[in-house]
Amino acid sequence: MTDKGILFVFSGPSGTGKGTILSSFNQKYDDKNIKYSVSATTRAPRPTEIDGINYFFKTEDEFNQMIKNDEFFEWAEFCGNLYGTPKKAVFDLLESGKDVILEIETKGALNVKRMYPDAVSIFILPPSLSELKSRLMGRGTETPESVQNRFETASRELPLAENYDYIIINDVLDDAVEKFRYIIESQRLKTNNNKNTILEVLKK
Amino acid sequence: MTDKGILFVFSGPSGTGKGTILSSFNQKYDDKNIKYSVSATTRAPRPTEIDGINYFFKTEDEFNQMIKNDEFFEWAEFCGNLYGTPKKAVFDLLESGKDVILEIETKGALNVKRMYPDAVSIFILPPSLSELKSRLMGRGTETPESVQNRFETASRELPLAENYDYIIINDVLDDAVEKFRYIIESQRLKTNNNKNTILEVLKK
Repeated sequence: MTDKGILFVFSGPSGTGKGTILSSFNQKYDDKNIKYSVSATTRAPRPTEIDGINYFFKTEDEFNQMIKNDEFFEWAEFCGNLYGTPKKAVFDLLESGKDVILEIETKGALNVKRMYPDAVSIFILPPSLSELKSRLMGRGTETPESVQNRFETASRELPLAENYDYIIINDVLDDAVEKFRYIIESQRLKTNNNKNTILEVLKK
Repeated sequence: MTDKGILFVFSGPSGTGKGTILSSFNQKYDDKNIKYSVSATTRAPRPTEIDGINYFFKTEDEFNQMIKNDEFFEWAEFCGNLYGTPKKAVFDLLESGKDVILEIETKGALNVKRMYPDAVSIFILPPSLSELKSRLMGRGTETPESVQNRFETASRELPLAENYDYIIINDVLDDAVEKFRYIIESQRLKTNNNKNTILEVLKK
Protein backbone atom coordinates (compact mmCIF):
# COMPACT_ATOMS: atom_id res chain seq x y z
CA MET A 1 0.00 0.00 0.00
CA THR A 2 1.32 3.42 -0.95
CA ASP A 3 1.60 6.05 1.75
CA LYS A 4 -0.51 9.17 1.33
CA GLY A 5 0.98 12.13 -0.52
CA ILE A 6 2.18 15.32 1.14
CA LEU A 7 0.51 18.71 0.81
CA PHE A 8 2.99 21.58 0.38
CA VAL A 9 1.63 25.07 0.89
CA PHE A 10 3.89 27.54 -0.83
CA SER A 11 3.43 31.19 0.03
CA GLY A 12 5.01 34.58 0.54
CA PRO A 13 4.29 38.23 -0.19
CA SER A 14 4.22 39.77 -3.64
CA GLY A 15 7.73 40.33 -5.05
CA THR A 16 9.43 37.50 -3.19
CA GLY A 17 9.56 35.28 -6.29
CA LYS A 18 7.24 32.37 -5.46
CA GLY A 19 6.23 31.77 -9.08
CA THR A 20 9.80 31.98 -10.36
CA ILE A 21 11.02 29.43 -7.81
CA LEU A 22 8.24 26.98 -8.69
CA SER A 23 8.66 27.22 -12.46
CA SER A 24 12.44 26.97 -12.17
CA PHE A 25 12.03 23.94 -9.87
CA ASN A 26 9.76 22.27 -12.43
CA GLN A 27 12.13 22.91 -15.31
CA LYS A 28 15.05 21.53 -13.36
CA TYR A 29 13.49 18.45 -11.76
CA ASP A 30 10.26 17.49 -13.56
CA ASP A 31 9.22 15.48 -10.49
CA LYS A 32 6.49 13.07 -11.61
CA ASN A 33 5.17 12.59 -8.10
CA ILE A 34 4.31 16.26 -7.70
CA LYS A 35 1.01 17.73 -8.84
CA TYR A 36 -0.20 21.30 -8.71
CA SER A 37 -3.58 22.11 -7.29
CA VAL A 38 -6.01 23.48 -9.91
CA SER A 39 -8.18 26.37 -8.71
CA ALA A 40 -11.83 26.93 -9.50
CA THR A 41 -12.88 30.29 -10.91
CA THR A 42 -15.92 32.12 -12.27
CA ARG A 43 -13.67 34.04 -14.68
CA ALA A 44 -14.23 33.24 -18.37
CA PRO A 45 -11.60 30.91 -19.88
CA ARG A 46 -8.97 32.57 -22.09
CA PRO A 47 -8.55 31.03 -25.57
CA THR A 48 -5.66 28.73 -24.61
CA GLU A 49 -7.02 27.68 -21.23
CA ILE A 50 -8.40 24.19 -20.69
CA ASP A 51 -11.03 23.29 -18.11
CA GLY A 52 -9.49 21.03 -15.44
CA ILE A 53 -5.92 21.92 -16.43
CA ASN A 54 -5.58 25.67 -15.94
CA TYR A 55 -8.74 26.10 -13.90
CA PHE A 56 -12.00 24.44 -13.12
CA PHE A 57 -14.32 26.95 -14.85
CA LYS A 58 -17.55 27.42 -12.96
CA THR A 59 -20.64 29.62 -13.22
CA GLU A 60 -21.29 31.90 -10.27
CA ASP A 61 -24.16 29.63 -9.22
CA GLU A 62 -21.96 26.55 -9.31
CA PHE A 63 -19.24 28.38 -7.37
CA ASN A 64 -21.69 29.58 -4.71
CA GLN A 65 -23.02 26.06 -4.39
CA MET A 66 -19.44 24.82 -3.84
CA ILE A 67 -19.01 27.40 -1.08
CA LYS A 68 -22.24 26.20 0.55
CA ASN A 69 -21.11 22.57 0.28
CA ASP A 70 -17.84 23.46 2.04
CA GLU A 71 -15.90 22.30 -1.00
CA PHE A 72 -13.13 24.91 -0.72
CA PHE A 73 -10.03 25.09 1.41
CA GLU A 74 -10.33 28.84 0.93
CA TRP A 75 -11.82 31.20 -1.63
CA ALA A 76 -11.64 34.92 -2.42
CA GLU A 77 -12.98 37.53 -4.81
CA PHE A 78 -10.50 39.23 -7.07
CA CYS A 79 -11.41 41.85 -9.73
CA GLY A 80 -15.05 40.80 -9.68
CA ASN A 81 -14.36 37.09 -10.15
CA LEU A 82 -14.33 34.30 -7.59
CA TYR A 83 -11.33 32.03 -7.08
CA GLY A 84 -11.12 29.02 -4.80
CA THR A 85 -9.04 25.94 -3.98
CA PRO A 86 -11.24 22.82 -4.13
CA LYS A 87 -10.55 20.32 -1.39
CA LYS A 88 -11.69 17.18 -3.19
CA ALA A 89 -9.22 17.38 -6.08
CA VAL A 90 -6.37 17.92 -3.60
CA PHE A 91 -7.48 15.09 -1.31
CA ASP A 92 -7.91 12.68 -4.25
CA LEU A 93 -4.34 13.35 -5.35
CA LEU A 94 -3.00 12.95 -1.80
CA GLU A 95 -4.91 9.68 -1.36
CA SER A 96 -3.39 8.33 -4.57
CA GLY A 97 0.08 9.01 -3.12
CA LYS A 98 0.88 12.14 -5.12
CA ASP A 99 2.40 15.17 -3.43
CA VAL A 100 0.49 18.38 -4.08
CA ILE A 101 1.79 21.94 -4.24
CA LEU A 102 -0.58 24.78 -3.44
CA GLU A 103 0.72 28.23 -4.36
CA ILE A 104 -1.43 30.58 -2.39
CA GLU A 105 -1.43 34.01 -0.74
CA THR A 106 -0.17 34.33 2.83
CA LYS A 107 -3.44 34.27 4.78
CA GLY A 108 -5.09 31.56 2.68
CA ALA A 109 -1.99 29.44 3.31
CA LEU A 110 -2.40 29.67 7.07
CA ASN A 111 -6.08 28.73 6.72
CA VAL A 112 -5.17 25.62 4.76
CA LYS A 113 -2.65 24.69 7.46
CA ARG A 114 -5.30 25.12 10.14
CA MET A 115 -7.74 22.90 8.26
CA TYR A 116 -5.14 20.31 7.30
CA PRO A 117 -2.38 20.31 9.94
CA ASP A 118 -0.35 17.70 8.03
CA ALA A 119 0.25 20.32 5.33
CA VAL A 120 3.85 21.52 5.12
CA SER A 121 3.89 25.30 4.93
CA ILE A 122 6.74 27.22 3.31
CA PHE A 123 7.18 30.98 3.37
CA ILE A 124 9.38 32.83 0.89
CA LEU A 125 11.27 35.83 2.24
CA PRO A 126 13.29 38.44 0.35
CA PRO A 127 16.94 38.82 1.46
CA SER A 128 16.05 42.29 2.82
CA LEU A 129 13.29 44.89 2.75
CA SER A 130 15.35 47.14 0.49
CA GLU A 131 15.87 44.28 -1.99
CA LEU A 132 12.13 43.61 -1.92
CA LYS A 133 11.44 47.23 -2.76
CA SER A 134 13.84 47.28 -5.66
CA ARG A 135 12.34 44.04 -7.03
CA LEU A 136 8.85 45.53 -6.91
CA MET A 137 10.14 48.68 -8.66
CA GLY A 138 12.11 46.59 -11.16
CA ARG A 139 8.94 45.19 -12.64
CA GLY A 140 8.54 48.61 -14.26
CA THR A 141 4.87 47.97 -14.90
CA GLU A 142 3.46 49.95 -12.03
CA THR A 143 3.17 53.52 -10.78
CA PRO A 144 5.30 54.64 -7.82
CA GLU A 145 2.12 54.72 -5.70
CA SER A 146 1.23 51.18 -6.65
CA VAL A 147 4.80 50.01 -5.88
CA GLN A 148 4.65 51.74 -2.50
CA ASN A 149 1.28 50.13 -1.86
CA ARG A 150 2.49 46.64 -2.70
CA PHE A 151 5.63 47.19 -0.66
CA GLU A 152 3.62 48.18 2.40
CA THR A 153 1.32 45.18 2.02
CA ALA A 154 4.32 42.88 1.65
CA SER A 155 6.04 44.39 4.70
CA ARG A 156 2.93 43.75 6.76
CA GLU A 157 2.83 40.15 5.56
CA LEU A 158 6.49 39.30 6.23
CA PRO A 159 6.12 38.75 10.00
CA LEU A 160 3.61 35.98 9.16
CA ALA A 161 6.69 33.91 8.29
CA GLU A 162 6.86 32.90 11.97
CA ASN A 163 3.70 30.83 11.61
CA TYR A 164 5.03 28.67 8.79
CA ASP A 165 6.98 25.41 9.07
CA TYR A 166 9.85 26.47 6.82
CA ILE A 167 11.30 29.67 5.42
CA ILE A 168 13.28 30.12 2.25
CA ILE A 169 15.19 33.37 1.76
CA ASN A 170 15.12 33.98 -1.98
CA ASP A 171 18.48 35.62 -2.54
CA VAL A 172 20.05 33.55 -5.37
CA LEU A 173 17.30 31.81 -7.38
CA ASP A 174 19.18 28.51 -7.86
CA ASP A 175 19.82 28.25 -4.12
CA ALA A 176 16.16 28.89 -3.36
CA VAL A 177 15.16 26.15 -5.81
CA GLU A 178 17.56 23.71 -4.12
CA LYS A 179 16.20 24.63 -0.71
CA PHE A 180 12.67 23.97 -1.89
CA ARG A 181 13.86 20.58 -3.10
CA TYR A 182 15.49 19.78 0.27
CA ILE A 183 12.17 20.45 1.98
CA ILE A 184 10.23 18.24 -0.43
CA GLU A 185 12.73 15.37 -0.33
CA SER A 186 13.14 15.48 3.44
CA GLN A 187 9.38 15.41 3.96
CA ARG A 188 9.32 12.22 1.95
CA LEU A 189 11.65 10.75 4.59
CA LYS A 190 9.42 11.66 7.54
CA THR A 191 8.43 8.58 9.51
CA ASN A 192 4.79 9.70 9.45
CA ASN A 193 4.85 9.68 5.66
CA ASN A 194 6.35 6.17 5.55
CA LYS A 195 4.24 4.02 7.87
CA ASN A 196 3.42 1.57 5.07
CA THR A 197 6.95 1.59 3.68
CA ILE A 198 8.31 0.61 7.10
CA LEU A 199 5.81 -2.24 7.38
CA GLU A 200 6.88 -3.49 3.97
CA VAL A 201 10.57 -3.50 4.89
CA LEU A 202 9.77 -5.51 8.00
CA LYS A 203 7.93 -8.11 5.92
CA LYS A 204 10.58 -8.62 3.25
CA MET B 1 22.76 36.94 16.69
CA THR B 2 23.23 33.43 15.35
CA ASP B 3 20.44 30.92 15.77
CA LYS B 4 21.22 27.87 17.88
CA GLY B 5 22.57 24.77 16.14
CA ILE B 6 20.56 21.61 15.50
CA LEU B 7 21.15 18.26 17.21
CA PHE B 8 20.91 15.28 14.84
CA VAL B 9 20.59 11.87 16.43
CA PHE B 10 21.66 9.23 13.96
CA SER B 11 20.78 5.66 14.77
CA GLY B 12 19.80 2.24 13.49
CA PRO B 13 20.54 -1.42 14.19
CA SER B 14 23.85 -3.12 13.55
CA GLY B 15 24.41 -3.84 9.85
CA THR B 16 22.31 -0.99 8.47
CA GLY B 17 25.36 1.06 7.54
CA LYS B 18 25.21 4.09 9.87
CA GLY B 19 28.96 4.55 10.01
CA THR B 20 29.40 4.15 6.26
CA ILE B 21 26.75 6.77 5.52
CA LEU B 22 28.33 9.26 7.92
CA SER B 23 31.88 8.83 6.66
CA SER B 24 30.75 8.99 3.05
CA PHE B 25 28.72 12.12 3.83
CA ASN B 26 31.79 13.74 5.38
CA GLN B 27 34.01 12.90 2.47
CA LYS B 28 31.52 14.27 -0.01
CA TYR B 29 30.42 17.46 1.73
CA ASP B 30 32.94 18.47 4.41
CA ASP B 31 30.25 20.63 6.04
CA LYS B 32 32.07 23.08 8.33
CA ASN B 33 28.97 23.77 10.39
CA ILE B 34 28.65 20.15 11.49
CA LYS B 35 30.46 18.75 14.52
CA TYR B 36 30.49 15.24 15.88
CA SER B 37 29.85 14.62 19.51
CA VAL B 38 32.85 13.16 21.35
CA SER B 39 32.05 10.41 23.87
CA ALA B 40 33.63 9.92 27.27
CA THR B 41 35.08 6.51 28.11
CA THR B 42 36.98 4.72 30.82
CA ARG B 43 38.72 2.59 28.18
CA ALA B 44 42.48 3.16 27.85
CA PRO B 45 43.47 5.30 24.84
CA ARG B 46 44.93 3.42 21.87
CA PRO B 47 48.31 4.70 20.61
CA THR B 48 46.80 6.97 17.89
CA GLU B 49 43.91 8.29 19.94
CA ILE B 50 43.87 11.84 21.23
CA ASP B 51 42.01 12.99 24.34
CA GLY B 52 39.18 15.36 23.35
CA ILE B 53 39.26 14.30 19.69
CA ASN B 54 38.51 10.56 19.65
CA TYR B 55 37.21 10.37 23.20
CA PHE B 56 37.33 12.17 26.49
CA PHE B 57 39.40 9.64 28.46
CA LYS B 58 38.29 9.38 32.07
CA THR B 59 39.14 7.29 35.11
CA GLU B 60 36.32 5.23 36.53
CA ASP B 61 36.06 7.64 39.45
CA GLU B 62 35.78 10.63 37.12
CA PHE B 63 33.19 8.82 35.02
CA ASN B 64 31.10 7.87 38.06
CA GLN B 65 31.29 11.45 39.25
CA MET B 66 29.98 12.60 35.84
CA ILE B 67 27.06 10.17 36.18
CA LYS B 68 26.27 11.58 39.64
CA ASN B 69 26.46 15.14 38.30
CA ASP B 70 23.96 14.26 35.56
CA GLU B 71 26.53 15.18 32.94
CA PHE B 72 25.50 12.51 30.43
CA PHE B 73 22.72 12.35 27.89
CA GLU B 74 23.07 8.60 28.25
CA TRP B 75 25.77 6.13 29.22
CA ALA B 76 26.31 2.36 29.05
CA GLU B 77 28.78 -0.34 29.93
CA PHE B 78 30.36 -2.26 27.08
CA CYS B 79 33.00 -5.00 27.49
CA GLY B 80 33.81 -3.82 31.00
CA ASN B 81 34.32 -0.18 30.03
CA LEU B 82 31.97 2.75 30.46
CA TYR B 83 30.91 4.95 27.54
CA GLY B 84 28.80 8.09 27.73
CA THR B 85 27.69 11.15 25.75
CA PRO B 86 28.48 14.32 27.72
CA LYS B 87 25.76 16.94 27.55
CA LYS B 88 27.89 20.02 28.12
CA ALA B 89 30.12 19.59 25.06
CA VAL B 90 27.04 19.08 22.87
CA PHE B 91 25.17 22.05 24.34
CA ASP B 92 28.22 24.33 24.00
CA LEU B 93 28.45 23.48 20.29
CA LEU B 94 24.71 24.00 19.77
CA GLU B 95 24.84 27.36 21.58
CA SER B 96 27.67 28.50 19.32
CA GLY B 97 25.43 27.78 16.31
CA LYS B 98 27.07 24.52 15.23
CA ASP B 99 24.97 21.52 14.25
CA VAL B 100 25.92 18.36 16.11
CA ILE B 101 25.66 14.74 14.98
CA LEU B 102 25.30 12.04 17.58
CA GLU B 103 25.78 8.50 16.29
CA ILE B 104 24.26 6.32 18.92
CA GLU B 105 22.51 2.97 19.45
CA THR B 106 18.73 2.80 19.05
CA LYS B 107 17.58 3.08 22.65
CA GLY B 108 20.11 5.72 23.65
CA ALA B 109 18.87 7.77 20.69
CA LEU B 110 15.30 7.74 21.94
CA ASN B 111 16.50 8.79 25.39
CA VAL B 112 18.33 11.77 23.93
CA LYS B 113 15.17 12.73 22.03
CA ARG B 114 13.15 12.53 25.25
CA MET B 115 15.60 14.74 27.10
CA TYR B 116 16.06 17.18 24.23
CA PRO B 117 12.87 17.20 22.13
CA ASP B 118 14.36 19.65 19.61
CA ALA B 119 16.76 16.87 18.54
CA VAL B 120 16.10 15.54 15.06
CA SER B 121 16.13 11.75 15.16
CA ILE B 122 17.00 9.67 12.11
CA PHE B 123 16.69 5.90 11.86
CA ILE B 124 18.53 3.84 9.24
CA LEU B 125 16.68 0.84 7.83
CA PRO B 126 17.96 -1.92 5.56
CA PRO B 127 16.03 -2.39 2.28
CA SER B 128 14.78 -5.74 3.62
CA LEU B 129 15.40 -8.24 6.40
CA SER B 130 17.05 -10.67 3.98
CA GLU B 131 19.44 -7.96 2.80
CA LEU B 132 20.25 -7.11 6.42
CA LYS B 133 21.09 -10.76 7.07
CA SER B 134 23.38 -11.04 4.08
CA ARG B 135 25.15 -7.81 5.07
CA LEU B 136 25.77 -9.14 8.56
CA MET B 137 27.07 -12.40 7.07
CA GLY B 138 29.14 -10.52 4.49
CA ARG B 139 31.35 -9.05 7.19
CA GLY B 140 32.90 -12.51 7.39
CA THR B 141 34.37 -11.76 10.79
CA GLU B 142 31.82 -13.55 12.89
CA THR B 143 30.58 -17.05 13.64
CA PRO B 144 27.16 -18.12 12.27
CA GLU B 145 25.81 -18.00 15.84
CA SER B 146 27.06 -14.47 16.32
CA VAL B 147 25.55 -13.42 12.96
CA GLN B 148 22.23 -14.98 13.95
CA ASN B 149 22.41 -13.22 17.29
CA ARG B 150 23.09 -9.83 15.75
CA PHE B 151 20.36 -10.41 13.19
CA GLU B 152 17.80 -11.17 15.88
CA THR B 153 18.80 -8.12 17.90
CA ALA B 154 18.57 -5.95 14.78
CA SER B 155 15.16 -7.38 13.87
CA ARG B 156 13.88 -6.52 17.32
CA GLU B 157 15.20 -2.98 17.00
CA LEU B 158 13.76 -2.25 13.55
CA PRO B 159 10.19 -1.51 14.73
CA LEU B 160 11.67 1.32 16.85
CA ALA B 161 11.88 3.21 13.56
CA GLU B 162 8.32 4.41 14.17
CA ASN B 163 9.46 6.56 17.08
CA TYR B 164 11.99 8.52 15.06
CA ASP B 165 11.41 11.71 13.09
CA TYR B 166 12.90 10.46 9.83
CA ILE B 167 13.81 7.15 8.25
CA ILE B 168 16.43 6.47 5.62
CA ILE B 169 16.35 3.14 3.81
CA ASN B 170 19.97 2.36 3.06
CA ASP B 171 19.70 0.57 -0.29
CA VAL B 172 22.16 2.46 -2.53
CA LEU B 173 24.80 4.20 -0.38
CA ASP B 174 24.96 7.41 -2.48
CA ASP B 175 21.18 7.82 -2.26
CA ALA B 176 21.26 7.33 1.50
CA VAL B 177 23.98 9.99 1.79
CA GLU B 178 21.86 12.42 -0.27
CA LYS B 179 18.84 11.71 1.88
CA PHE B 180 20.82 12.44 5.01
CA ARG B 181 21.84 15.72 3.41
CA TYR B 182 18.20 16.61 2.57
CA ILE B 183 17.29 16.15 6.21
CA ILE B 184 20.16 18.31 7.45
CA GLU B 185 19.60 21.08 4.91
CA SER B 186 15.83 21.14 5.37
CA GLN B 187 16.17 21.38 9.14
CA ARG B 188 18.27 24.47 8.59
CA LEU B 189 15.23 25.98 6.86
CA LYS B 190 12.83 25.29 9.74
CA THR B 191 11.25 28.49 10.99
CA ASN B 192 12.08 27.52 14.59
CA ASN B 193 15.76 27.35 13.67
CA ASN B 194 15.66 30.78 12.03
CA LYS B 195 13.96 33.12 14.48
CA ASN B 196 16.95 35.47 14.56
CA THR B 197 17.50 35.26 10.81
CA ILE B 198 13.89 36.35 10.20
CA LEU B 199 14.29 39.29 12.58
CA GLU B 200 17.42 40.35 10.71
CA VAL B 201 15.69 40.26 7.31
CA LEU B 202 12.90 42.44 8.70
CA LYS B 203 15.44 45.01 9.91
CA LYS B 204 17.46 45.31 6.71
